[in-house]
Amino acid sequence: MSSSFGHLFRISSFGESHGPAVGVVVDGCPPRLPLTVEEIQRDLDRRRPGQSRLVTQRNESDTAEVLSGLFEGRTTGTPIAVVVRNADQNPGAYDHLRDVYRPSHADFTYDAKYGFRDHRGGGRSSARETIARVAGGAVARKLLATVAGIEVLAWVSQVHDIDADVDPATVTLAAVEGDPTRCPDPVAAARMVEAIEAARRDGDSLGGVVTCIARHMPTGLGEPAFDRLDADLARAMLSLPASKGFEVGLGFGATRLTGREHNDPFVPHDNPRRLRTLTNHSGGIQGGISNGEDLVVRVAFKPTGTISSPQATVTRDATAVELAARGRHDPCVLPRAVPLVEAMCCLTLADHWLRQHALDVLPRADHDR
Amino acid sequence: MSSSFGHLFRISSFGESHGPAVGVVVDGCPPRLPLTVEEIQRDLDRRRPGQSRLVTQRNESDTAEVLSGLFEGRTTGTPIAVVVRNADQNPGAYDHLRDVYRPSHADFTYDAKYGFRDHRGGGRSSARETIARVAGGAVARKLLATVAGIEVLAWVSQVHDIDADVDPATVTLAAVEGDPTRCPDPVAAARMVEAIEAARRDGDSLGGVVTCIARHMPTGLGEPAFDRLDADLARAMLSLPASKGFEVGLGFGATRLTGREHNDPFVPHDNPRRLRTLTNHSGGIQGGISNGEDLVVRVAFKPTGTISSPQATVTRDATAVELAARGRHDPCVLPRAVPLVEAMCCLTLADHWLRQHALDVLPRADHDR
Amino acid sequence: MSSSFGHLFRISSFGESHGPAVGVVVDGCPPRLPLTVEEIQRDLDRRRPGQSRLVTQRNESDTAEVLSGLFEGRTTGTPIAVVVRNADQNPGAYDHLRDVYRPSHADFTYDAKYGFRDHRGGGRSSARETIARVAGGAVARKLLATVAGIEVLAWVSQVHDIDADVDPATVTLAAVEGDPTRCPDPVAAARMVEAIEAARRDGDSLGGVVTCIARHMPTGLGEPAFDRLDADLARAMLSLPASKGFEVGLGFGATRLTGREHNDPFVPHDNPRRLRTLTNHSGGIQGGISNGEDLVVRVAFKPTGTISSPQATVTRDATAVELAARGRHDPCVLPRAVPLVEAMCCLTLADHWLRQHALDVLPRADHDR
Amino acid sequence: MSSSFGHLFRISSFGESHGPAVGVVVDGCPPRLPLTVEEIQRDLDRRRPGQSRLVTQRNESDTAEVLSGLFEGRTTGTPIAVVVRNADQNPGAYDHLRDVYRPSHADFTYDAKYGFRDHRGGGRSSARETIARVAGGAVARKLLATVAGIEVLAWVSQVHDIDADVDPATVTLAAVEGDPTRCPDPVAAARMVEAIEAARRDGDSLGGVVTCIARHMPTGLGEPAFDRLDADLARAMLSLPASKGFEVGLGFGATRLTGREHNDPFVPHDNPRRLRTLTNHSGGIQGGISNGEDLVVRVAFKPTGTISSPQATVTRDATAVELAARGRHDPCVLPRAVPLVEAMCCLTLADHWLRQHALDVLPRADHDR
Repeated sequence: MSSSFGHLFRISSFGESHGPAVGVVVDGCPPRLPLTVEEIQRDLDRRRPGQSRLVTQRNESDTAEVLSGLFEGRTTGTPIAVVVRNADQNPGAYDHLRDVYRPSHADFTYDAKYGFRDHRGGGRSSARETIARVAGGAVARKLLATVAGIEVLAWVSQVHDIDADVDPATVTLAAVEGDPTRCPDPVAAARMVEAIEAARRDGDSLGGVVTCIARHMPTGLGEPAFDRLDADLARAMLSLPASKGFEVGLGFGATRLTGREHNDPFVPHDNPRRLRTLTNHSGGIQGGISNGEDLVVRVAFKPTGTISSPQATVTRDATAVELAARGRHDPCVLPRAVPLVEAMCCLTLADHWLRQHALDVLPRADHDR
Repeated sequence: MSSSFGHLFRISSFGESHGPAVGVVVDGCPPRLPLTVEEIQRDLDRRRPGQSRLVTQRNESDTAEVLSGLFEGRTTGTPIAVVVRNADQNPGAYDHLRDVYRPSHADFTYDAKYGFRDHRGGGRSSARETIARVAGGAVARKLLATVAGIEVLAWVSQVHDIDADVDPATVTLAAVEGDPTRCPDPVAAARMVEAIEAARRDGDSLGGVVTCIARHMPTGLGEPAFDRLDADLARAMLSLPASKGFEVGLGFGATRLTGREHNDPFVPHDNPRRLRTLTNHSGGIQGGISNGEDLVVRVAFKPTGTISSPQATVTRDATAVELAARGRHDPCVLPRAVPLVEAMCCLTLADHWLRQHALDVLPRADHDR
Repeated sequence: MSSSFGHLFRISSFGESHGPAVGVVVDGCPPRLPLTVEEIQRDLDRRRPGQSRLVTQRNESDTAEVLSGLFEGRTTGTPIAVVVRNADQNPGAYDHLRDVYRPSHADFTYDAKYGFRDHRGGGRSSARETIARVAGGAVARKLLATVAGIEVLAWVSQVHDIDADVDPATVTLAAVEGDPTRCPDPVAAARMVEAIEAARRDGDSLGGVVTCIARHMPTGLGEPAFDRLDADLARAMLSLPASKGFEVGLGFGATRLTGREHNDPFVPHDNPRRLRTLTNHSGGIQGGISNGEDLVVRVAFKPTGTISSPQATVTRDATAVELAARGRHDPCVLPRAVPLVEAMCCLTLADHWLRQHALDVLPRADHDR
Repeated sequence: MSSSFGHLFRISSFGESHGPAVGVVVDGCPPRLPLTVEEIQRDLDRRRPGQSRLVTQRNESDTAEVLSGLFEGRTTGTPIAVVVRNADQNPGAYDHLRDVYRPSHADFTYDAKYGFRDHRGGGRSSARETIARVAGGAVARKLLATVAGIEVLAWVSQVHDIDADVDPATVTLAAVEGDPTRCPDPVAAARMVEAIEAARRDGDSLGGVVTCIARHMPTGLGEPAFDRLDADLARAMLSLPASKGFEVGLGFGATRLTGREHNDPFVPHDNPRRLRTLTNHSGGIQGGISNGEDLVVRVAFKPTGTISSPQATVTRDATAVELAARGRHDPCVLPRAVPLVEAMCCLTLADHWLRQHALDVLPRADHDR
């Protein structure tokens, strides 16, 4: 079950880095949703390698083929299978890793867990697995836009020690996509480019933070006690490779405020069934349920484990050796992490939207919200 | 399904703040585990109100009754139901909240979601729901200790702007329990007491951070792609009331390091099937799977929403009013959050331990780990 | 997870025959459903022992206490916990079974599975566990009636070699409840009473068949490929103690017809979005989805394993012995199985009703059904 | 979630009859299992059309391609994706069905549920979906054989009014595969061939029964209260197209016996932790848990809905019309149902085997079984 995500809107991911293909099965997408393969491809193109000089040059077109679930331009309500062939398979390139564990990679832990070493470019732990998420996320994104008008948007808000200055209320997709860093603050973006290129030259790597928002949020998404919207978003984001932290609203920053400073005062809303809050320190979620304000979450990504400088490590038979990465890799995953964070956000929201729809079946009295 | 947590080791939580009782059903606990109601009560006593002057004075003995699943001092393999009666029910005390939403509480979002206002002390969103987690967590803790020798320990590492200095390698349960703050750094603890009492006097509240570790971890816990150990821990922690952030290892701090600084070099281990890492920046998890090093996670808790100073808010019919909390509440939830964080950690680890056991059924070759 | 049933409308059952209590947690019931404890008690009273001379005389009032999830006469949307205390606990009465396995009971298999012998009246395998199902089923029944007008009704259609003649189109609850056998054919019912009493006198036991229908069915319930409505009903029914077979529509009888004889011709319906079928050999389900005709299923129950005649068996240490049941037991479970079958049908339909509601979120074109 | 089956050993099925492909993702197969694509193909070849003159002549090679999860001849522990291209796509052949509902098919119910008409050969309700089950079942079969020595075998035991005489204790795969009917009783098989050919000539169709056994069963498989082995098998079998009934052991036949006749007396076993029963009326399951005797289940399949004689039906706009099937179809699905029943049995047993392995983690005392 571990390669499935979601309850009512569920994806099942499959595929290794250097096997024949990676793919996803989307189960639970409502029927009659207008959807084209181009809409899926558009998000895949934002994820794929080789988009800019900042990211890995692995040569993959990442072309999606839809095997099921679409008919005459609409979803049928049955599983949507999407497959992407691995074009640039060169398993031989990884022969030198057959018996050695790369530090801060999944090599050792996969071997410990599965008693099995698939040394070909990370196997299942490769970032290529995230193709499944992005393809599934594109379907979820279309559903959210169609049924609820929800818009999900993420950007790079920090690389190493460079913090961007971005107004979540006004930032646009165009601004994000306008820079290879996917940081919509041009001054910070320029510094990020420099820092990433310096790290590459230096055989080093950098981490950072992606911020993600959802606009036009309905109230009522999230299911306490355990399936709170923030809890499921946290799981979604921490399931991404290289992620090490998650915040909603002010997150860890909230711990430095007092209650008086942090509380979001309620004020009336034009819609009598809704309220607004003067501030949004909560990030759009209170008690695990969306309150209608913009959702705001942040995800920390560590610096890439793969670096071309030599590092101490050990082999499968526990001999100490020195290892330096060869070949193609990203010195900073942040720009390519943006569509992944959006995908996981879309998948989580789509699932919760359907769940709330299932729960809300009895009429509300006039005096009920 | 939203009040259940876990797959193989699963708890189902029930109960409202001012209903007759709260409780939990633990389904999937292996048979033949020695277990007594006292072991459950011990953890409940660490959670209950009235332990010290720092926490709410609600008068509850929180006495656990086991209704099923235990026979002659051992688990039977069938569901273990634990019920705790709500002794201090005084629903009338909340009549003034019948039509008003407390800022940064779940009042409005529950009403928006359920179309139903249970104004009695937070209803299901009350901290009393966490009794279910602690009772279930006590069973999980016993299982982990018995089958794997795993020890889970948490403490308060920050309150507002006061950061504790604690060595995770040497900190003990006795040190944590020795101070009402559950901060094992006596200097910081004394300052935290002062700060919490000042906040109470000032009608304000404080947040902070709980750090949690697990020692004697096996390798191999965690199931990519989605059920990574860190992802499930993140969900577990964000499902706790008032939590706003989660980190594993260095978390957001990792984003300020380069790969060379952050990577954990592997070194040989006495056990030929294992490895060690020189540093533990990863917090014991790599690629979503435990690597055998100590697990280290941190959880951010916002300042309590309930404060006795007046705040602007609105009523159910959207009239702006001013509200000041009356009655008993915690000006800082951190000391009582410690057993909650431990419980969620135990529940997550117990589930993953059973899952790994189910997966690892075929023999390993000598050259496999 | 094995003591939970359902996805969106989910019950979790707990409790042993001679422990303190049995009970259920209903998670996922929509909020705002009018519901009283009396409605739950009414179904429990149909299940409880001692209703008539035909069934076991174990003295249990089976009084339901609702611990959570109801407030001011309506469901809150949070888990509904119902507990029934075991009044007639007399564990000593089972001491002679501590070391012996009753034939065709669960004694041996529970011991083999759990490595644990709870000899007190069957422990978890006792029919008392079904209290949880009936209590949960009562909530489901109320939901189905309220949101969809669905009526679920079952009756005894066969005991041993006595087949009842009942018209599913006209049979009523009053007719079923009017006889202690719960067989609404008075002639057959009288013969069943005789046969059951003769079996009791003879130290023997009888089996039979319960037929269950659901009227006013909507179209569209059931989720292929695997969660077909008939598949989930089959699982629901086979999860009942002593059940050995399940049929939908003509069931095994369909195998003796040809396609020409068996097919149900479609004819127009007053409602242009629906159809009718001239016959209902399919039992209201086609392709795993309800077609709007009455649901018709049948469940086979074996003769009770417990008989007072001596039988050959073995002890825990594999010594051959002879065993004759003492104490109270049902010579025929059929009358008391009727509310169980109804409960499982209601639980299955409620879950599927919510699932279909979640799926059907996009508008239908005029030319769509 | 409805296209997934299993908890720990889980398959996710996708694909329509006349889309590009059908396939399956197997998630949860333990690592290090020796497995080849030929082992999967072998079972697919038993399912595919055109094997004999008795079954549909649709021309499909049904060639399996494994996209992930296998490396160097062993499973990796990650999802195994298998895809089978639909070669004989001729959607135009179904244009006459665009607006008409075939009686006793899923045409109307799919339209009612999904608000969407995929008229191409049944779309998702086509028997081609069962390719996913057979491919997944082949993996499960290999696992069961490897870890537990379990052998699963099914055969046709009845067609229309022809009952076969087969000894479950001695029947072999060779005997089953030796006849195009898959009935290992040669006399009955010859009569079945005649009956099927007569039905085809007559524009009619026939149903029947498949019996399935599992040999070398361990004790302890099955998880009450709800995930009983027989309950999960019932769901598995009723999820197959055209199935209408399920029995374990004597099934409905048990209702005609008394308890004294039906009970299976226990006798000692060579293995002191096990027992044997003199008879096996229970079909290897007692209290929902396997008792170590051979598993015996029976599945009823209705006569094929598609017949070439004219039938009354209605169109999408509710006009009464007459319809006669054209093209290729099976007049009797029984021979091809045999590998499907085996596959569902293997999938269910593999899931339960892993679940029991996860539960049985604590040591058993000498006096425990």
